[in-house]
Amino acid sequence: MSSRTGFAATSSTGVRSETVRSANLSMLLRELHFRGAASRSELVSRTGLTRSSVGALIGELVKLGLVVEMPAASDGSRGRPSPVAIVRSAENVAIAVDVSVDSIGVAAVGLGGVVLTVERIERARDRVSVDATIADIVATVGMVRARLAQQYRILGIGVAVVGLVQRSDNSVAIAPNLGWRDVRFGDRLGAALGHAAPVCVANDADVAALAEIHRGVAVGVDDVLYVWGEVGVGGGLISKGEMITGASGFAGEIGHLPVNPLGRACQCGSRGCWETEVGEGALLQRAGRSRDGGREAVDALLDDALGGVALAVAALNEEATWLGFGLAGLINVLNPSMVVLGGLFDAVYPFVEGRLLDEIKRRALASSFANLVIVRTALGEDALLLGAGELAFEQVLADPLGAIRALTGSAL
Amino acid sequence: MSSRTGFAATSSTGVRSETVRSANLSMLLRELHFRGAASRSELVSRTGLTRSSVGALIGELVKLGLVVEMPAASDGSRGRPSPVAIVRSAENVAIAVDVSVDSIGVAAVGLGGVVLTVERIERARDRVSVDATIADIVATVGMVRARLAQQYRILGIGVAVVGLVQRSDNSVAIAPNLGWRDVRFGDRLGAALGHAAPVCVANDADVAALAEIHRGVAVGVDDVLYVWGEVGVGGGLISKGEMITGASGFAGEIGHLPVNPLGRACQCGSRGCWETEVGEGALLQRAGRSRDGGREAVDALLDDALGGVALAVAALNEEATWLGFGLAGLINVLNPSMVVLGGLFDAVYPFVEGRLLDEIKRRALASSFANLVIVRTALGEDALLLGAGELAFEQVLADPLGAIRALTGSAL
Repeated sequence: MSSRTGFAATSSTGVRSETVRSANLSMLLRELHFRGAASRSELVSRTGLTRSSVGALIGELVKLGLVVEMPAASDGSRGRPSPVAIVRSAENVAIAVDVSVDSIGVAAVGLGGVVLTVERIERARDRVSVDATIADIVATVGMVRARLAQQYRILGIGVAVVGLVQRSDNSVAIAPNLGWRDVRFGDRLGAALGHAAPVCVANDADVAALAEIHRGVAVGVDDVLYVWGEVGVGGGLISKGEMITGASGFAGEIGHLPVNPLGRACQCGSRGCWETEVGEGALLQRAGRSRDGGREAVDALLDDALGGVALAVAALNEEATWLGFGLAGLINVLNPSMVVLGGLFDAVYPFVEGRLLDEIKRRALASSFANLVIVRTALGEDALLLGAGELAFEQVLADPLGAIRALTGSAL
Repeated sequence: MSSRTGFAATSSTGVRSETVRSANLSMLLRELHFRGAASRSELVSRTGLTRSSVGALIGELVKLGLVVEMPAASDGSRGRPSPVAIVRSAENVAIAVDVSVDSIGVAAVGLGGVVLTVERIERARDRVSVDATIADIVATVGMVRARLAQQYRILGIGVAVVGLVQRSDNSVAIAPNLGWRDVRFGDRLGAALGHAAPVCVANDADVAALAEIHRGVAVGVDDVLYVWGEVGVGGGLISKGEMITGASGFAGEIGHLPVNPLGRACQCGSRGCWETEVGEGALLQRAGRSRDGGREAVDALLDDALGGVALAVAALNEEATWLGFGLAGLINVLNPSMVVLGGLFDAVYPFVEGRLLDEIKRRALASSFANLVIVRTALGEDALLLGAGELAFEQVLADPLGAIRALTGSAL
């Protein structure tokens, strides 16, 4: 876990006491959201704040309806037992949406990262237009909300989209697999849902990386390269615990790293991009299968490899070499302490591990390889929804008072 | 210029009033260091602090000997004229050191980024051992210091080294062109200089990038890719105004991005790294010259190209294509809003521009290329020394009170 002080090194804004209170509220809510219930004493020792500050701040979070305090039994030590603060998960909900090519997933995620309910609908290729997608999401959100028994409020709506997302206005610049270009998706979805909570849209690989650093194998790791493969290849880059978004939010398009000057055409318009060598289509084609066979065909190919079918083994060997070629470059550029493999790369890992590590070792700088771990994602197919939930919670975590005020329209 | 609040989004430390005061001191000193002299009124409007806070904080900086206030003539508006604060450059000095293969540069840089005096000594290839390098630096620092007329104190010592630098302990992990490996360079240099000021060592491309964002063409730009070429190729990556260092400080080794599966051996042990295609050696060899001709041979090659010599023109064309190939990948991965070209790439730019931009356009994602500017460095050969000066000032800028206390050993 990084130890950082409460200030950005290059701050150019003066700090006032109002800002301090807001920052401390944010910090306490993050503690409870990410690390679970904690007693006042634990919060004092974790945050460095005084006991009276912690008490007052928890009181504010309780008043905002975000946290509840439970009386704790004495732990045997002298003095009054310290009450335990816990987030009100069921009452504070994020709507998490995952817009993939073949399906749409929607979840209600409670504060604290609890998935309350999930719904996934498969959809045909002719349902991927923006209007059809929005209609499908609205319907699915309705199904999910109908299942929530308790009184609740929606704090935010987070959406993962398989495409390039401009973070400043939640628009999709281009989503080749959906055929979208310059779509103000966040605005349009927000209008269709008709809810006061803010809509936040991001690239799917970025969202999956967010899930990994908050709820997955990369919790507490500062410098992470998340690599996700399917038809396309995407990445989420984490530096010092923060997402590298780039100027517009397009950073992490590692699938379009040129790796083969003699390579085949890529759907992006270039040639020899990394995803033309390591994406699902390339793997399937090398094994003599249709490029469009999808995950079922990959599973069949892996079965073949287990059975010793030479063509399947050779295709996986080539996959390993190209995977290592590109990963080594990214390791040299970014010097992560952890690489997390998701999707296709998680699936093929047991088949490519030896050759992959050899190739990385051969091509990555020894110093950058020395303290690197390469791991597979531990999050299941709901990783994107978990991450989209975190995206949705970002505003309330950054400024609990401001976000709840904006939501309720009241001057709390 | 980014507008950021005074708090890191993922802060996990409580904020106390002592921390606030320290952060505000830091912020005001940064304003004066980076943006020059300012009246109290200007500082109030730039920082959002109250007039009385600004007055008290400037008072502290004056007491620390870092700032002096000058009475200002009335600007014609009613009310008392606002005194102007200015950093005490000549009295507060950084020692900046640049350890290159062929030379060592040392400068005294005053607070505010004023280069007070510079000395560069050429050195033969047999002077690059660690001991010889340290002896040369100590002697050159002595020469530089002897020239400073005024009473001054050294606030920090910043060193740029052509190699991989582990930021946590200022050690050089590997510097192939110097033949160094695992050298505790910061500690050894600090001991040899025998000065209380902290020594801070970093990779030369990172230091050059620091100079660009603070004093060069990238001032106020949040997402920058600095690309520097010579014998080797290095990069400095800036995301949201902060350096991407990676887990150990080795990020930015863009010269070792594999780009050519059929390429030639690289000194790093791999094959087909970007620097084997775009470094000085490759360019010279393609033009029929010795790989080791150095900058003079490059200048001769450029003269040839101006004269229409076919081999020189062809070599530059190939340089352009490979430069674009690698840059496009980095643009896709990092989505910078500005690419700054330094060293060899600055020199060849007028000869490669058209072909380079075509290649980038062909291979970079249209969305990431759309708002990108590609510029040449405007800093001369002292860029590394300017950057090393910024490196040296980082501690006092981050915590003026703490740094001066540590330096003087007194409880101010």
